[in-house]
Amino acid sequence: MVESFGQRLRTLIEDRGPLCVGVDPSTTVIEQWGRRDDVEGAEFVALSVVEAAIGTAVAIKPQVAFFERFGSAGYRILERVIREARDASLIVIADAKRGDIGSSVEGYAQAWLADPSPLAVDALTAHPFLGVGALAPLVSAAQATGRGLFVLAGTSNPEGRAIQTALVDGAQSVEVAVLAAISELNANGDELGAVGAVIGATRERPAFDLARLRGPILVPGVGAQGASAQQVGRLFSDAPRASILVNVGRAILERGPDRRAIRDVARRWRDEISGALP
Amino acid sequence: MVESFGQRLRTLIEDRGPLCVGVDPSTTVIEQWGRRDDVEGAEFVALSVVEAAIGTAVAIKPQVAFFERFGSAGYRILERVIREARDASLIVIADAKRGDIGSSVEGYAQAWLADPSPLAVDALTAHPFLGVGALAPLVSAAQATGRGLFVLAGTSNPEGRAIQTALVDGAQSVEVAVLAAISELNANGDELGAVGAVIGATRERPAFDLARLRGPILVPGVGAQGASAQQVGRLFSDAPRASILVNVGRAILERGPDRRAIRDVARRWRDEISGALP
Repeated sequence: MVESFGQRLRTLIEDRGPLCVGVDPSTTVIEQWGRRDDVEGAEFVALSVVEAAIGTAVAIKPQVAFFERFGSAGYRILERVIREARDASLIVIADAKRGDIGSSVEGYAQAWLADPSPLAVDALTAHPFLGVGALAPLVSAAQATGRGLFVLAGTSNPEGRAIQTALVDGAQSVEVAVLAAISELNANGDELGAVGAVIGATRERPAFDLARLRGPILVPGVGAQGASAQQVGRLFSDAPRASILVNVGRAILERGPDRRAIRDVARRWRDEISGALP
Repeated sequence: MVESFGQRLRTLIEDRGPLCVGVDPSTTVIEQWGRRDDVEGAEFVALSVVEAAIGTAVAIKPQVAFFERFGSAGYRILERVIREARDASLIVIADAKRGDIGSSVEGYAQAWLADPSPLAVDALTAHPFLGVGALAPLVSAAQATGRGLFVLAGTSNPEGRAIQTALVDGAQSVEVAVLAAISELNANGDELGAVGAVIGATRERPAFDLARLRGPILVPGVGAQGASAQQVGRLFSDAPRASILVNVGRAILERGPDRRAIRDVARRWRDEISGALP
C-alpha cells in the first residue's frame, strides 16, 4: 500500500512547518514586480517564488488561472513550476478547482493525478457542486497514487455563504455535508487520508468536529485576504495540528522581486502560524 | 453597445437549430475510433468532430478535461479546435466549469473571455459554489465583449441533488437561488443577456419560471446520458424556444470515425430536438 497523502503531508508539516506559498503570477503581482504582464513576466514571478519557498515552505499552491490566461504557453510554464518544485521536494497543490461528472472527472484525474502527465501534482483542489460523490475518479486516483484532493467546503468570501450554509434535507449545512462526505471517504485507512478540505480562514467555526475529518485542511485567506495567524489558531483548535496547511499568497508575493525579502516574510509567516496553531 | 451573447445565440439558433456537439476526446472515444489514446489521437477526434459539426450544429462544446490530460500539448490542440471552429462560424463553449474568487476569476476572464487569449471562446461554463456574485469578473468580461457565461444550476447527475436542492434561508433551493441570481444579472439590457444556466435534461422541472431567466440555457444529458429529445421539450416548455441549446456528445461521437455517419446522426438529433421544443 502506498502511504496516504495525508500521512505524507503530516510528516512533512511536522518537519518543516505549516506554510504553503501561493504561486500567483497575476497581472497585479507581475506589475508590482516591475515586469510586463506577459508569459515571461509570469514565468519570472512563478520561478522566483518557488525558489524562495524552498527550505521555508512545505508546499506551494500555483493558482492555475494565472497560467491559463496565457493558454498553452502558460501551461508550459506551469509544467516547469511543477517540475522544479517537485525536484526541490516541495509539495505541489494545483489550485485548479476542478469539478465535473463521469468521464470528464476521469480526464481531470489523468491530467493532475497520474504519473505520466506533465501536470501531475501532489494534490488538486476541487468543487463539490456536482456532489462529492461525483469526484470519485479523482478520489480513487489520489488514493491509489499517494496523492491528495482538497474539496472546497467553507470558503472565506461573503458571496459563497448563501450556498454553503443552505440546509441539506433540513438538517445540516452544505459545508457540513461536504465535510461529512470527506470524512466518510477517509474512514477506512490511514489516520489522515487522501481527501482534504478547503476551509477559509476569515470565517466562523464550522459546526463539524474537525478531528473526525481524518484528512488535511488547506486554509486560504491569511494575510492580504484579512485573516491573522491567531485567527487560524482559534478556528482550527479542534483539528490535529499537523493536518493544517496554511496558504499565504499576496502578503508574501508583494515583497518581490527581492528574493531575500520574499523568503524573510515567508519565514515570519511560517513561524507566526506555527506558533498560533494549538 | 455590443450585441449580447444571448441575442446573438438566439439569432443563430433560429437559423441553424438548437444543436451543440460535444467535442470530447476521452480515452473511451479515441479507442472506439481505433486510435491510440495520445495527443495525436485526441487531435484527430476533435478536429473530425468540428468538421462534422459545420453546417449542422450551431455550437460546439469542447470538454476541457479531455485536452488538459495532455498538459500544454493538449491545450495547443484545444487552441486549434477553437480557432477552426470559430473560423467556421461555430459558437464555441468551453466546458471548463471554472469558479474561484477575486483576482483568480479575473485570471479566468483573461484566459477564456478576452480577445488576445489563444483560448478566447464565445462562452464558458462556471461553478457557482463560491457564489454567483464571485463570478463578477467573468460576467463583466462576457457582457463587455458579447461573450457568454453558463453557470451550473441544476445538473443531471444524482450525486449533485443533495447540494443543489439544499434550502437557502429556508426558502428556495440552491438551484433556484442560482437561477434567480442569473436572472438578476440579465435584468437590465437585452431580452436575452450574457449569463446563461446549465440545466441537465434527465431531471424534473426546476421550481423557477424560466421565462424570467432572460438568458440562454445549455442542456447536457441528452443521448448517451439518458434523456430523449421529448424530455427536453417537456422540461423547457416555459422557456423561450430559441434560448435552448442542447448538447449531444457521446451519442454522436460513437458513430466515428466515419465523418458522414457523425454528420448524419448529428442532423437527426438536431431535427428531433428541434421538433420536440415548444
